[in-house]
Amino acid sequence: MSLTIARVRLTPVLVADPPLLNTQGVHQPYTPRLIVEVVTADGITGVGETYGDTKYLELARPLAQKVTGRQVTDLNGLFLDADEVAVDASRVVGQTDVGGLRGVQTADKLRLSVVSAFEVACLDALGKALGLPVHALLGGKVRDAVEYSAYLFYKWADHPAGVPSERDDWGAALDPAGVVEQARIFAERYGFTSFKLKGGVFPPEEEIAAVRALAGAFPGHPLRLDPNGAWSVETSLRVAEELGDVLEYLEDPASGTPAMAEIAARTGVPLATNMCVTTFAEIPEAFTRGAVQVVLSDHHYWGGLRNTQQLAAVCRAFGVGVSMHSNTHLGISLAAMTQVAATVPGLHHACDSHYPWQSEDVLTERLVFEGGRVAVSDAPGLGVELDRDRLAFLHRRWLDDDGALRDRDDAAAMRAADPAWVTPSVPRW
Amino acid sequence: MSLTIARVRLTPVLVADPPLLNTQGVHQPYTPRLIVEVVTADGITGVGETYGDTKYLELARPLAQKVTGRQVTDLNGLFLDADEVAVDASRVVGQTDVGGLRGVQTADKLRLSVVSAFEVACLDALGKALGLPVHALLGGKVRDAVEYSAYLFYKWADHPAGVPSERDDWGAALDPAGVVEQARIFAERYGFTSFKLKGGVFPPEEEIAAVRALAGAFPGHPLRLDPNGAWSVETSLRVAEELGDVLEYLEDPASGTPAMAEIAARTGVPLATNMCVTTFAEIPEAFTRGAVQVVLSDHHYWGGLRNTQQLAAVCRAFGVGVSMHSNTHLGISLAAMTQVAATVPGLHHACDSHYPWQSEDVLTERLVFEGGRVAVSDAPGLGVELDRDRLAFLHRRWLDDDGALRDRDDAAAMRAADPAWVTPSVPRW
Repeated sequence: MSLTIARVRLTPVLVADPPLLNTQGVHQPYTPRLIVEVVTADGITGVGETYGDTKYLELARPLAQKVTGRQVTDLNGLFLDADEVAVDASRVVGQTDVGGLRGVQTADKLRLSVVSAFEVACLDALGKALGLPVHALLGGKVRDAVEYSAYLFYKWADHPAGVPSERDDWGAALDPAGVVEQARIFAERYGFTSFKLKGGVFPPEEEIAAVRALAGAFPGHPLRLDPNGAWSVETSLRVAEELGDVLEYLEDPASGTPAMAEIAARTGVPLATNMCVTTFAEIPEAFTRGAVQVVLSDHHYWGGLRNTQQLAAVCRAFGVGVSMHSNTHLGISLAAMTQVAATVPGLHHACDSHYPWQSEDVLTERLVFEGGRVAVSDAPGLGVELDRDRLAFLHRRWLDDDGALRDRDDAAAMRAADPAWVTPSVPRW
Repeated sequence: MSLTIARVRLTPVLVADPPLLNTQGVHQPYTPRLIVEVVTADGITGVGETYGDTKYLELARPLAQKVTGRQVTDLNGLFLDADEVAVDASRVVGQTDVGGLRGVQTADKLRLSVVSAFEVACLDALGKALGLPVHALLGGKVRDAVEYSAYLFYKWADHPAGVPSERDDWGAALDPAGVVEQARIFAERYGFTSFKLKGGVFPPEEEIAAVRALAGAFPGHPLRLDPNGAWSVETSLRVAEELGDVLEYLEDPASGTPAMAEIAARTGVPLATNMCVTTFAEIPEAFTRGAVQVVLSDHHYWGGLRNTQQLAAVCRAFGVGVSMHSNTHLGISLAAMTQVAATVPGLHHACDSHYPWQSEDVLTERLVFEGGRVAVSDAPGLGVELDRDRLAFLHRRWLDDDGALRDRDDAAAMRAADPAWVTPSVPRW
């Protein structure tokens, strides 16, 4: 049995995304993802997935060359390789990435976001080679299914007229009634029992009313509101005060650890984050100051499944909860999230997943939510299989794009409807 | 291939230990260890090793029953099983264990100290079954050899007259010249280039003189002094002041996190510990207060190799160094330490190991230090093999013992020489 990496295939794709609103603008009709395939000398293929914007691709290409010849067991070695890949400084343009939606941007974090897909692909290949599920390579599952929450968005019925896009059947959700209706569909189709509303879109009063309406429609169910750091400390405290009785937690109400720490000190509502704690380097200040009570791990930018386990260990040591963040992703990443989540003790909050919004995938069989849960696969590797025709189709879309959609830009998408739109500065309210 | 645990064999042994002095007394002539063998349904045997005192044995027996039937991949499951094993509260008698030498004692830590040997045995069995070294099951090695330091002790030439014991060829070391001579032997035989002196035995002035003598004999080499928490804050600061120019770090100069924090705040000499941070629960206070700069992990009581990696991740996030503690142990544990240390990035301090003091072992081939390093084995599992005759011989010694040596008691051993000896209270100086 050879576990040597004989080659790596990188396939950027564009996948359909509905017109979901957030504080930065609106999702573009297609979003870039990168599919990473690691092929062993024995011809076993493992798959991974990560962000597909140009700057990730630019790192993935030299990394693919570097790791060729390594063993798929040599996961620590992947990270050493990634450390050696130069990051174009001009790509690390500011403190935050995609308008802050992915937290701070650093060269190291970019590297981790890329190498994570290689790590997942190696674990998938190793699992297939050994006949073991990925969770068994991570210490074994402690649960048979992983709970996810419904990820509610304010949304338009369609992308702006004249913009090429795929249609979706979700309709619009622009007020409390629309949000509740969307939640009902989520509950019916997938069995979710907890609900997260992406906020920061409308003035806080409207979003408070939406959460109140959810609480009325789903009494006793865990609810979350996430304005992506759009609020001031005072606004955050006001929302916490008004919704404290129904919120499981408030997610990133304000931007930055100092603001989060101040809010945490003045409210009993737990604060969650995938913005102010997105790297190990951000942990000490946040935990020492008690700024967050739940960290939402995104295994893509934390650097893979083993780093996610290590993050969970840090959180456990400090009495901080852990759950999972989700950006637009496909079934490979949902499978990876489910495998690692199955191994993390004390996962007390349902994980986020965008997956129901993605009507397109690169798998022969989509993953299924039942009762709001994804069953933990015991098949070798991640337990998923690439559909090469679908992959080729979505890659063709990426090839055909003139570059406008290859880098996610929610503000640009908003300008298609509102030419005067500028990215709001924070605090927006 | 079946990875099911068909049975677990527990073999307590007594192994020879020289008359090594510490602040509690002196090592007994024989010390208890527990050898854990996990046998798969396919007949593959994995080995682990841990503390062998009665209270560990009492936990190991029901745990051995519980884990039978689990997969050797199900490492997280082992910990769930351990959580369910009742700990006799009368065994958790105080705040500290073996006079504090192993740090705080809690039921959870006792469980971790036992389950760690099962985890190592499972990893060994899994590696053998898959044809992979343990380090490959832990993410892969990032170095080919692991550096250890010479572990110097004040010692008598022999155990007290009339006490059954094995002879050793190290001679006495009771003053600076004796310590330097011992260090020379360590350097010659094993190639160690850094030196740790177990202190807390003589008044600080004598130990300062010993370290000064070492610095003279081995200029520029990293030196460490470890009085096992025997000193007051003021004494610790005085020693730090006097030896600051030659110490790599000062290890557990005083007892408890508050004292360590005060010392750390008032000296530039780094502080290391295997006493005030010995559990994840102890981390937040110590790290938030900056009480320690290096945590010395003992994989036995931290709960195994994967927990050691997680501890290293916590340390890395907080900018705290990590290295490894060692109590009396055999080659199985040295192999385990070496495998996990090989996977930990940023291991900037040579690890401790008692191993050169142990003339007896349960392996067919002893591990070898060359240039102060142990080569990282790439053989399947830990890369060691049990010598069943030696194991039976050392187990027979345990069976024949009347109970006096089955629980380590350095003060009792000292009373064989000095009937008036009582365990010193801290601070001793």
